[in-house]
Amino acid sequence: MTELLSIILAAGEGTRMKSALPKVLHPVGGLPVVSHVLRTVQSFGSQVAVVIGPSHEAVEAAVTRFEASAQISKQVDRLGTAHAVQQARAAYDAAPGHVLVLYADTPLVTAGTISQIVEKLDAGADMVVVGFRPDNPTGYGRLLTDGGRVRAIREHKDASDEERLIDLCNSGIIGFRGDTLRGVIDRIGNQNSKGEYYLTDAVELANGDGKRVDFIEADARELVGVDNREKLAEAEATFQAFKRKEAMDNGVTLRDPHSVWFSWDTELGRDVTVFPNVVFGPGVRIADNVEIRAFCDIEDAVIGEGASIGPFARIRGGAELGRDVHLGNFVEVKKSKIGAGTKAGHLSYLGDAEIGSKTNIGAGTITCNYDGTNKDKTVIGDSVFIGSNASLVAPVTIGDRAYTASGSVITEDVPADALALGRARQVNKPGYAPQLRERALAKKAAKGK
Amino acid sequence: MTELLSIILAAGEGTRMKSALPKVLHPVGGLPVVSHVLRTVQSFGSQVAVVIGPSHEAVEAAVTRFEASAQISKQVDRLGTAHAVQQARAAYDAAPGHVLVLYADTPLVTAGTISQIVEKLDAGADMVVVGFRPDNPTGYGRLLTDGGRVRAIREHKDASDEERLIDLCNSGIIGFRGDTLRGVIDRIGNQNSKGEYYLTDAVELANGDGKRVDFIEADARELVGVDNREKLAEAEATFQAFKRKEAMDNGVTLRDPHSVWFSWDTELGRDVTVFPNVVFGPGVRIADNVEIRAFCDIEDAVIGEGASIGPFARIRGGAELGRDVHLGNFVEVKKSKIGAGTKAGHLSYLGDAEIGSKTNIGAGTITCNYDGTNKDKTVIGDSVFIGSNASLVAPVTIGDRAYTASGSVITEDVPADALALGRARQVNKPGYAPQLRERALAKKAAKGK
Amino acid sequence: MTELLSIILAAGEGTRMKSALPKVLHPVGGLPVVSHVLRTVQSFGSQVAVVIGPSHEAVEAAVTRFEASAQISKQVDRLGTAHAVQQARAAYDAAPGHVLVLYADTPLVTAGTISQIVEKLDAGADMVVVGFRPDNPTGYGRLLTDGGRVRAIREHKDASDEERLIDLCNSGIIGFRGDTLRGVIDRIGNQNSKGEYYLTDAVELANGDGKRVDFIEADARELVGVDNREKLAEAEATFQAFKRKEAMDNGVTLRDPHSVWFSWDTELGRDVTVFPNVVFGPGVRIADNVEIRAFCDIEDAVIGEGASIGPFARIRGGAELGRDVHLGNFVEVKKSKIGAGTKAGHLSYLGDAEIGSKTNIGAGTITCNYDGTNKDKTVIGDSVFIGSNASLVAPVTIGDRAYTASGSVITEDVPADALALGRARQVNKPGYAPQLRERALAKKAAKGK
Repeated sequence: MTELLSIILAAGEGTRMKSALPKVLHPVGGLPVVSHVLRTVQSFGSQVAVVIGPSHEAVEAAVTRFEASAQISKQVDRLGTAHAVQQARAAYDAAPGHVLVLYADTPLVTAGTISQIVEKLDAGADMVVVGFRPDNPTGYGRLLTDGGRVRAIREHKDASDEERLIDLCNSGIIGFRGDTLRGVIDRIGNQNSKGEYYLTDAVELANGDGKRVDFIEADARELVGVDNREKLAEAEATFQAFKRKEAMDNGVTLRDPHSVWFSWDTELGRDVTVFPNVVFGPGVRIADNVEIRAFCDIEDAVIGEGASIGPFARIRGGAELGRDVHLGNFVEVKKSKIGAGTKAGHLSYLGDAEIGSKTNIGAGTITCNYDGTNKDKTVIGDSVFIGSNASLVAPVTIGDRAYTASGSVITEDVPADALALGRARQVNKPGYAPQLRERALAKKAAKGK
Repeated sequence: MTELLSIILAAGEGTRMKSALPKVLHPVGGLPVVSHVLRTVQSFGSQVAVVIGPSHEAVEAAVTRFEASAQISKQVDRLGTAHAVQQARAAYDAAPGHVLVLYADTPLVTAGTISQIVEKLDAGADMVVVGFRPDNPTGYGRLLTDGGRVRAIREHKDASDEERLIDLCNSGIIGFRGDTLRGVIDRIGNQNSKGEYYLTDAVELANGDGKRVDFIEADARELVGVDNREKLAEAEATFQAFKRKEAMDNGVTLRDPHSVWFSWDTELGRDVTVFPNVVFGPGVRIADNVEIRAFCDIEDAVIGEGASIGPFARIRGGAELGRDVHLGNFVEVKKSKIGAGTKAGHLSYLGDAEIGSKTNIGAGTITCNYDGTNKDKTVIGDSVFIGSNASLVAPVTIGDRAYTASGSVITEDVPADALALGRARQVNKPGYAPQLRERALAKKAAKGK
Repeated sequence: MTELLSIILAAGEGTRMKSALPKVLHPVGGLPVVSHVLRTVQSFGSQVAVVIGPSHEAVEAAVTRFEASAQISKQVDRLGTAHAVQQARAAYDAAPGHVLVLYADTPLVTAGTISQIVEKLDAGADMVVVGFRPDNPTGYGRLLTDGGRVRAIREHKDASDEERLIDLCNSGIIGFRGDTLRGVIDRIGNQNSKGEYYLTDAVELANGDGKRVDFIEADARELVGVDNREKLAEAEATFQAFKRKEAMDNGVTLRDPHSVWFSWDTELGRDVTVFPNVVFGPGVRIADNVEIRAFCDIEDAVIGEGASIGPFARIRGGAELGRDVHLGNFVEVKKSKIGAGTKAGHLSYLGDAEIGSKTNIGAGTITCNYDGTNKDKTVIGDSVFIGSNASLVAPVTIGDRAYTASGSVITEDVPADALALGRARQVNKPGYAPQLRERALAKKAAKGK
């Protein structure tokens, strides 16, 4: 395959976001929008150049975290898209193959669209413009085409009434043969009302040079640009629609697809059933035949085959659940490993724990893993019975087949097969309840005074 | 009323579901799709014959669980719908009245539609074809009608351009007078590209015999066939829309109807208010004037008038809540009976309990109902005060008006009017906290090495 | 600005709601529908007259609670809208300026629409009719206009075929110059099929007097009338759509706008991020840069900058959270004040508490604030460490930098810098677990007999 350089324009301010965070760092599906674009071009093995704004250190950091070899350049003055591309001169001057120009705020462009651009270039096109048909083309530049070629891109405000009837619009994304880009980029002028250098002018220049300017057409939903919070929500919705369909096509039941939220990297096995209202944060991998009931929030977790989760479960922080684990309501598991067939059904916090298989964690169990400074481990063996409302004070180890009495505070290790008790004896005071009530009422009366 | 036999075709493999579960057992509104069809024909007192696939033991079990008298037959080779119907020969040969042919993967066909078929048959029709008008008729067989009669059903691929303009399509559901079915079924041939026997050919045969073939028209939404996960989600959505409307028509407020999920048998009284995000599993009956706040998951439960539930409550396993009960956040009630006016407001698990009226269950109360083998009962009287963070170790009984101190582990019965304490005395160690912090920091430093 | 009197018609029975509650008291966005109308006219400093039904004490109470100076009158017989307006004669006879007639069951009429009415009246119109264009105009009265003036309002059933093509319909809302209203109201007759007095007849009377009857056009979504549960749900949905857009326009990220529910008075700062499935009850004010994760239910709460809330948090009852507070999953905060940087991450109930800054509240902490009669306070200082699964029995005070051991019941005050323990010592009984299991199995076997 021809080598590819992707120039990603990320310098926009995004003031309409009304945010302290640069717009390209706002997340869609749990991943910054710029990283979506990086990820897509990475799947082509593309080299990457990113043009950022002058005070965009956070963008630079995010980009290099996701793509260490990205060449970063800054656009200090914002003089238009062609000017932005010029900031990546070092990259495109050295590019042996094709050059793609993409936008960091357009996260949903698919690999399929990029494939089409590359195929056209490989087949002899000198430039390939990505068009799309929005519901309402008002405001977009129109592709003036002729026999499959693009002759020019006409801005809406400059278009004749007849040209405004054209519904094929300019997405801004353009693929170039490297020579073509290098041949036109510095000849783009700024004789227009804003005095800016527009990359779209490359179309007419290339045509003038006798180059072949083709176009492809992409799904309008791919091309949503995130420049305010409503567009961000729209991009998120489209992303979710893509992921939900993908999951269902792979044999996942989503009872109510609209109320299941995926991250960019969520993986669900076959015959997984997801009830309404489930949120998958980043880093989730779920095996076959798992049931996720309503109201679960799961991130950074691996869940084994046949597990049954929720309702109202929260899993996070690198949790690993074995086969047939059951987690019930109001249970949180954080950075813990839980063995096959173990159950924690109710109101528990399991943090920094290693739990064996076929163990029963009683309702209300709390791993006391934090002393204010350190996080310590709770180790529980196989076939253990942890009685309800236990406090397991880490670091502590409970051996296989041990049994802890309900309501116990366990501060010391429990050997295998031992019973551990850590609770006070009960005392009944017959007839005291009426006195307590009288005292409480008297107190209330006194307060009332 | 004329006697009715319903032949339900359930032999399809459903490979597009990508599931180990036969497609007709996937649930809609918490009930397998085949059971929806059974339930609808049961409302007519219909006899039932179900044609299943050769390795469909699970389907057979589900059908006979729901309709014990169903006659099951197997279609070993899959040679078309007429061939499938023939597998139920014993049933239709003995049928004294009308015969309906229905599909097990079409769960939302309404009793209204079946009534219309029966009325037409009672009024003299020999066959009644159920038509519908899909958004996009491409791919469906068209009903060729003439003066209110159906002359033929034309498959899409065999239809002329003119016939393709017809938007009245074949649902596959057909009602027959018994004699009519018996007169045509064995004359249906397989001279077609797939070599299969199509029940739709009965239309032309019956017409040839001078029979009257009528049609009725059903709402397209009723006729969604569940054969992949997206169709399953679509059927679920339509089912939910029907249930939500029914509830609102009966005087229920759904703050956001789209975020309330019903089961097939959910019953809500008048002036019930349901906040957003509530899931009703099977077996729920709720009286008038109940408020269900956001994020509740309720199944197998009866809730009395004036109760106030949630947010974040989970109720299940045959729970019975009396009038004016209040359950608050992060409270689970399982297989328990709770008397009028009793409150459990926060972070509690009440399992296998019998609780009287006007009792207060403190925050963090846990019934320790399981010893790893047995589930035991917790019995709590009227006007009891259970202090917060109690562990009630079953079997245990707490008498009327008793009072248990906060943080107690209650292992023995508490008499009426008694105060029970089961907690350690507090000891303060002045000035120790700084030492603990130093020690923790030292430990952290040691780990760091 | 010209003085304004708003006559709000609230006498309708609303039987289609099937509710014991008068329809105008059903809430939208947490506020009764009639109060929405009151609130909107209050923003113009309008005087208010409300016409209620004969047994509408609850409506009267709700109105006067929201607008103490409202003049209430009763319509005993329901003889039409003009007759209803006449019940407010004392108010309009004394009105020095314009008079608006509005409907109590139409909660979403905007201030923008009322501004337009007032501007037209100020500019010389004698009457201003509010029109709208519904998706389906069938059943609505049509505005017969001529050169920008309204000549008559024609009821659907009386309209000619040509008139039925008009899609500009009558909302019922009318603004009058006071004299115009007083000049026509008593001349409206009841010669119609129902024998009722219709306010719409004022249009023809005013035209006959040579008055100028203008119209304005409002968004159809504003004009939804709440008269059954589906319309109530529709009004709620529109209200939510308005609030969601407003929040996003102000720089709030709503991951999935459709799953965030606002109250009428919710205020969110810039760069607040709201995950899916969050419910805001009345009385919420959230500062900048707060993250609200999924599944939170928040009402009557003030949350400081940089706080991080949820998932699965519930906040209510006049809670005040300082800067950078973190509340995690299954945590309830009620009527408590929490200082900057304090964390309560898991399974806790904090009620009637005052907590300092930089304090750590361990998992499973319960403030035992209720003795069955009184609610008492828990006071916790700065930089305190509350060990997991603590029961803090109020009234109790825990001093700065103190430390309570995990699993402790704290019944007495803890001095600053002290360590408090209130738990039993652990005892291990080696080899006892197998005996417990045998005993449990024997019990099970005995039960089985």
